Formats: sequence, structure tokens, C-alpha cells
Amino acid sequence: MDQIELQQFFATRATVRSYSEREVEPQKLRRLLSLAAQAPTTGNMQLYSVIVSRSRAEREALAPAHFGQGQVTSGAAVVLTFCVDLNRYSRWVALGGADAGFDNLQALMYGVLDCAIFAQQFNTLAELHGLGCCYLGTTLFNAPQIADVLKLPPRVVPLLTLTVGYPASAPAPSDRLPIGAIIHKGQYADYADAYLRAAYADHEADPANRAFVAENGKENLAQVYAQVRYPRAMNEQFSTVLRDFLDRAVFNAGEQPQEQ
Amino acid sequence: MDQIELQQFFATRATVRSYSEREVEPQKLRRLLSLAAQAPTTGNMQLYSVIVSRSRAEREALAPAHFGQGQVTSGAAVVLTFCVDLNRYSRWVALGGADAGFDNLQALMYGVLDCAIFAQQFNTLAELHGLGCCYLGTTLFNAPQIADVLKLPPRVVPLLTLTVGYPASAPAPSDRLPIGAIIHKGQYADYADAYLRAAYADHEADPANRAFVAENGKENLAQVYAQVRYPRAMNEQFSTVLRDFLDRAVFNAGEQPQEQ
Repeated sequence: MDQIELQQFFATRATVRSYSEREVEPQKLRRLLSLAAQAPTTGNMQLYSVIVSRSRAEREALAPAHFGQGQVTSGAAVVLTFCVDLNRYSRWVALGGADAGFDNLQALMYGVLDCAIFAQQFNTLAELHGLGCCYLGTTLFNAPQIADVLKLPPRVVPLLTLTVGYPASAPAPSDRLPIGAIIHKGQYADYADAYLRAAYADHEADPANRAFVAENGKENLAQVYAQVRYPRAMNEQFSTVLRDFLDRAVFNAGEQPQEQ
Repeated sequence: MDQIELQQFFATRATVRSYSEREVEPQKLRRLLSLAAQAPTTGNMQLYSVIVSRSRAEREALAPAHFGQGQVTSGAAVVLTFCVDLNRYSRWVALGGADAGFDNLQALMYGVLDCAIFAQQFNTLAELHGLGCCYLGTTLFNAPQIADVLKLPPRVVPLLTLTVGYPASAPAPSDRLPIGAIIHKGQYADYADAYLRAAYADHEADPANRAFVAENGKENLAQVYAQVRYPRAMNEQFSTVLRDFLDRAVFNAGEQPQEQ
């Protein structure tokens, strides 16, 4: 690919939710994960692990935690659960006779950023190699169930799930906001109402979005988002679940980890 | 680039901390940010903004919050502060007569993941276009000062800072852990002590790391990490700062935002 082809690739990438029966070759998957691990990481700590669920039984065990979203079991998908992993580092530090001191918010965030950056680098590499991927936003909703299914020890938090496979179809890229609405020069410039309305006008005019508004009996797309897709009650319910999980798994994980 | 060249590129990428005097062309920066915005995002909400600090005065105003790290003012660096932005979305929802319901942990995490994925997609695109980048891990330590300098309104949280410029030198890639230590098949397999020691052996043997151990009068690299680089007291101090900031900026941000 020359630079124009590369730019075309990034401009037209899209989430792929349905996969063919062609297997994702294990050696290819391992190679792409290894390349992704060269992505930046906090102080070279690499505070992440990835759990590979390949068999139908393994994927079906995860499906309820993802509310049965079809991507998990579509075709020969591989399901990758990218986890914040403070356990491996803490164990290594303990072997050196020291205390990692990682039962706190900053350490969690070192891991969240490491893990998200690693996952996205893998996503890009997979797409560049003919695979299709879909992130599942349900991972942080149902972290406790996922931790049970995958036997995650304390200090390991499932953060992002990616389904990966050879695409069964080639979806169109999503419309994004005008880039001017994302970039601020020097300081944050808050938005005038008229500017905001214009920035979201293409989303509002999209036929699929107009259909969602009509189907749900709402007045506009903002109401679909705030009252149907991401309503307060859902955000708050799963915030409580996540806080409880983080309290147990990270902030009060107890004694220094030892050999299992 | 063919696939072998692409793999070589990802395998050898490295953080660049020092930049030449060559300006990062504004149109090129905008184009790369626009391409990066095609990265995956939670429900197409794009819960991020980026603040571009280009002039020397703008960069020097940010430098203390990054503990004076030289990357911020090196050469003609551009400093990009990638922020979780729940403000723009909440403002748009309010214009539609609804309540975003985003003053909670899950909403913050939608934004953290969106923002980290966007930042890393930009990092990759910049590197593919001849630029060098360095993430600054200090952003979440000093979020309150950064928010002041950049005039961030409530519901906007600085998450990642990236310095970007034409490289003044070509650093070697970092050694990473063996990929087998990152990948788990089906379920998490906790590590035997001997396995962990072997996995970290290359890091321990690295001459630069051996020099750090000696300089700091420590017994091993794990002690350098846990007692010098990321000590408990520092992690805990900045966790308190971050919790207070998030309480103010996100969880108790107050009334529905209005036109400024």
C-alpha cells in the first residue's frame, strides 16, 4: 500500500459483525497479537492479557454476558477478551521482594490505557490483514460474569471484547462528526447551540437513524440515544455493578499474590 | 507498503521523544485526526475532543503539569491532549429535550475507551506518515492543572497527551514480554513463579535496566519499578487527586449543560 492506499484504508474501515466459516489461523492470530504488543505501554509494564475463546463451547459460555449479541457466535469468529492485568506485574514485583502498590485508581488507569491501546493496535493490524472485527461494549457491564467464565484471578479486569473473523460481508463506514467539532486550538472552545445542531445534522438526517426515531416513537435522535440506547437507569445500574467488581478485584484484592 | 513491510513497520515502531525544528503541517495534522476518527467508537458517540497546543507559549503553559518532560517543548513538537468529552454529547442531548444521564462511571468508561482508541489510531497514522510520537503518562496525575490551562469545562477529562513531531533521531524499539505471557487460551492460566522469572529475564538482562538497578542501589528491576518509578505513595497520592477531580468534573458536575 502506498500512502494514498493507506489513507483510503483508514478512511473506509468499518466494524464487521458477521463472519464466514473460514478459521482465523492460530499462527496468524499470534503473530498479529505479537506485533500489536509493540504499541506504546506505560513504562513498558504491558498491564494487559488477552483471553482467546475459539471453540463454539467457549464462545457460547461468553454469549450471555454479551446479551447474546450474534457476533460472539457468528461463523468461525474468535472472541478476544482484552483484560487489564495487574496480577502478572504484581506477582513479578513480589518475586523481587517488593510491593507493587497497585490497589488504587491510578494503577487501574495505567492498565486501562495500556489495554485499550494494545486492543486498538491489534484491531488495526487485523483489519490490515483481511480480518473483520467488532468491539462489544458489554464487557464492562458484565465484568463479574466474564471474570467467572474466564477464571480471571483478582487484579485482572475484562475491559474490551473484540470478535474477529473473516468478513461475511463488507459494511459501509460510519459517518462521523465533522472533525472541526473534535479539534480545539490552544484551549477548549465550548459549542454554540447552532454549531452543535449543525455538527449533528448529518447523523440526524441518516435514514437508518430516522427509522430508529420513528420506531421508538421519539421526537429526535438525541432522545433515542438518551432514552433507549444509553438511558440513565442502565448507566447507573451497571456503574454500581462495575464499582462493586473493581472494589473486590482491584481496590481490596487482599494479600500480595502468590504462586498458584 | 506490502504486508511484509507493514509487519516490519509495526514490529519496529518506537516512541520518539525528541523532535526536529520542522513544523507539523496543520493540514496534515487535521487530515490524520480526521482519519483517526474512523476508529471504532461506542455507539458512534465519539466521546472525545483533542486540544492542539502548537505555539511555544501554549506548550510551555502545559510543561509544569507534565513535570517539565522535555518532549513537550522539544523542537517543533505539537502537543495533543486527548480528552474524554461527555460535554458535547450531553449538550446535544439537552438540545433534543432529553437528559444524557452521563454523570456516572459507565459513561466515563465509554469515553475513556473511545478516547484511548482514537488517540492510538492517530498515533499509528502519524507514525505511518513519518511523524514520531510520545505518550505522557502524567496526564491523569495532573488532570486538574491541565483542565485549568486548557479551559476544560465540566464533563471533559484530559486522558492522554501525545507529543508529535518530525523525529530528531530514530530510537530502537522496546523489548516486550514474550507474547506467550500475554495470551491465555480459553481461560486465564495463572503463572508459575519459574515461568514469570523466565518471562521477565530479558528485561532484567537489558543493560539499561541493569544500570537503573545499580544507580538506584536496588537488588533487582522489580524493586526499581515498585520503589522508584511507580511507588505506592505516588500511585495513592495521584489516585486521591484524580478521584477528587472526577467527582467534581463528572460525577457531581451539576446542572444540565447550557449554551455558553
